[in-house]
Amino acid sequence: MIIDVHGHYTTAPKSLDDWRNRQIAGIKDPALMPKPSELKISDDELRETIENNQLKLMKQRGSDLTIFSPRASFMAHHIGDFQVSSTWASICNELCARVAQLFPDHFIGAAMLPQSPGVDPRTCIPELERCVKEYGFVGINLNPDPSGGHWTSPPLSDRHWYPIYEKMVEYDIPAMIHVSTSCNACFHTTGAHYLNADTTAFMQCLTSDLFKDFPTLKFLIPHGGGAVPYHWGRFRGLAQELKKPLLEEHLLKNIFFDTCVYHQPGINLLTEVIPVDNILFASEMIGAVRGIDPQTGHYFDDTKRYIENTANLTPQQRHQIYEGNARRVFSRLDAALKAQGK
Amino acid sequence: MIIDVHGHYTTAPKSLDDWRNRQIAGIKDPALMPKPSELKISDDELRETIENNQLKLMKQRGSDLTIFSPRASFMAHHIGDFQVSSTWASICNELCARVAQLFPDHFIGAAMLPQSPGVDPRTCIPELERCVKEYGFVGINLNPDPSGGHWTSPPLSDRHWYPIYEKMVEYDIPAMIHVSTSCNACFHTTGAHYLNADTTAFMQCLTSDLFKDFPTLKFLIPHGGGAVPYHWGRFRGLAQELKKPLLEEHLLKNIFFDTCVYHQPGINLLTEVIPVDNILFASEMIGAVRGIDPQTGHYFDDTKRYIENTANLTPQQRHQIYEGNARRVFSRLDAALKAQGK
Repeated sequence: MIIDVHGHYTTAPKSLDDWRNRQIAGIKDPALMPKPSELKISDDELRETIENNQLKLMKQRGSDLTIFSPRASFMAHHIGDFQVSSTWASICNELCARVAQLFPDHFIGAAMLPQSPGVDPRTCIPELERCVKEYGFVGINLNPDPSGGHWTSPPLSDRHWYPIYEKMVEYDIPAMIHVSTSCNACFHTTGAHYLNADTTAFMQCLTSDLFKDFPTLKFLIPHGGGAVPYHWGRFRGLAQELKKPLLEEHLLKNIFFDTCVYHQPGINLLTEVIPVDNILFASEMIGAVRGIDPQTGHYFDDTKRYIENTANLTPQQRHQIYEGNARRVFSRLDAALKAQGK
Repeated sequence: MIIDVHGHYTTAPKSLDDWRNRQIAGIKDPALMPKPSELKISDDELRETIENNQLKLMKQRGSDLTIFSPRASFMAHHIGDFQVSSTWASICNELCARVAQLFPDHFIGAAMLPQSPGVDPRTCIPELERCVKEYGFVGINLNPDPSGGHWTSPPLSDRHWYPIYEKMVEYDIPAMIHVSTSCNACFHTTGAHYLNADTTAFMQCLTSDLFKDFPTLKFLIPHGGGAVPYHWGRFRGLAQELKKPLLEEHLLKNIFFDTCVYHQPGINLLTEVIPVDNILFASEMIGAVRGIDPQTGHYFDDTKRYIENTANLTPQQRHQIYEGNARRVFSRLDAALKAQGK
């Protein structure tokens, strides 16, 4: 079984965009604010957006199940206040839950949180609980920078975030650390902000003792860990200078990397440098890079090909990356699969 | 000949720190502001800090010449106003010039600029001109984020920066794109801010047509290009989606990467993915990572070992990385070496 731990609903019906645009207009002019009930999307519409996109490509490429969350760049936690984020998160999570209900063999949900800059993360807990309890979601996406590129929140090691971590530990759900759209003109969203956030999050953990406070907390750093594996020597050296334990001991019981690295040399490096226990298969399909690589004739984001072709992995290790690690890190996914006899 | 294009004067005498601390105190209380003439450092003191540090390690490791600039993390352009930065840059550049005069076979200068957040970069030109004309400096360090982690300046593609570029083109000097200390608690300076800035700068260039306006402008992106080579497929794919030319055509006539990547797999990837014409030898010694790698028994930042040991390079290509590319990119260095009969 091949589990893709990083998929977003990037192909939702246009009526979702329209509703969101009305919501944004409603921030300035409350008379324009739409009700959630005004968004009407039928099951057939949902089916169509999935069958012709993600599911079609999953079947072509040979992956079975995607951990599916709302479109990352559309979370846009910097827009509006907590109420705006809360309504938007609720709608987006519900759509992912419906996709998972329509295609139970192929999708299972992970929650977007109703974060808002300057607002206590504790306010996200009701939506988190709803997604886990009502929808059977198996993880969350945590945005370390709800300001959208201004980085005004404290580091992930700060107690500011602890209410979320306490709930994650209680439910044994991991968080993918994933920013959203950059509204800072310096940072291109998918070409800079995403990768920078990955590197930043790792370093925030490295300089702290967060995982002493939460020994069972699990973070998934997407996009192959940003710059981290490429600079693994730098991070080992910085940890040494900061008198921290070896990274295996200090961080790798709690931090995992996905395989959203869109060329063979990158996956070769990832699988050479990072212990196989810490690598989870993912493609972020359909996401930031949708084209076909003229050098290979295959989709850039068909990351399974790179995993298949790297010389660094045994069949057993590939199985770990495709399935074993995902079931270990997303323990509620494992439980859900076992309940289905898988 | 082996040229290290990325060295900072990280070992300057303590009296420099003391003077800087007095200058910072003088921002709040002008009565405490020291005069530049109050900083007294003898040639013997300079010799000692170099002979026992950089030069000793250069000889041990077998590099010959370092392009030497003021300590990057101490530029701290966010502290004080333009006048503070201007005096500080002048002092730091002068010290590097004196080191180059004392050790003309081993050091040649690159300038720190007196940048200040919100101040027109045009104000940096007198110091830039002084460093090139009076000191014979061969390059500059340009900070894309003088705010120190708040990213309040426009992207490098903005006309805001054009006065600097016009002067760079006039003198045919490259800029290393190098941030300074982060005063944003989210970003560890050397573990996140530096690498993020590298990635950010590359993407700012990718999304723009900057090099159409300045076909001979040259940027050196340090720290092995941040996350860029590891995610080369992502960047190729993003360029394709943005309808930009292939990266070789679009950026690689103007953008170069150094080899400050502190482990063998990172250098293997860099030299596999990035054309050899675009790679310049560097170590940033003595810099962010000063320890010995317990896995190898050698210094993390002894990057020459990784270049020697990679299977990706022929002797001719190693020569390019060690010397040929540096002399091409830093044309004033080449002229200075030729004037010495080298």
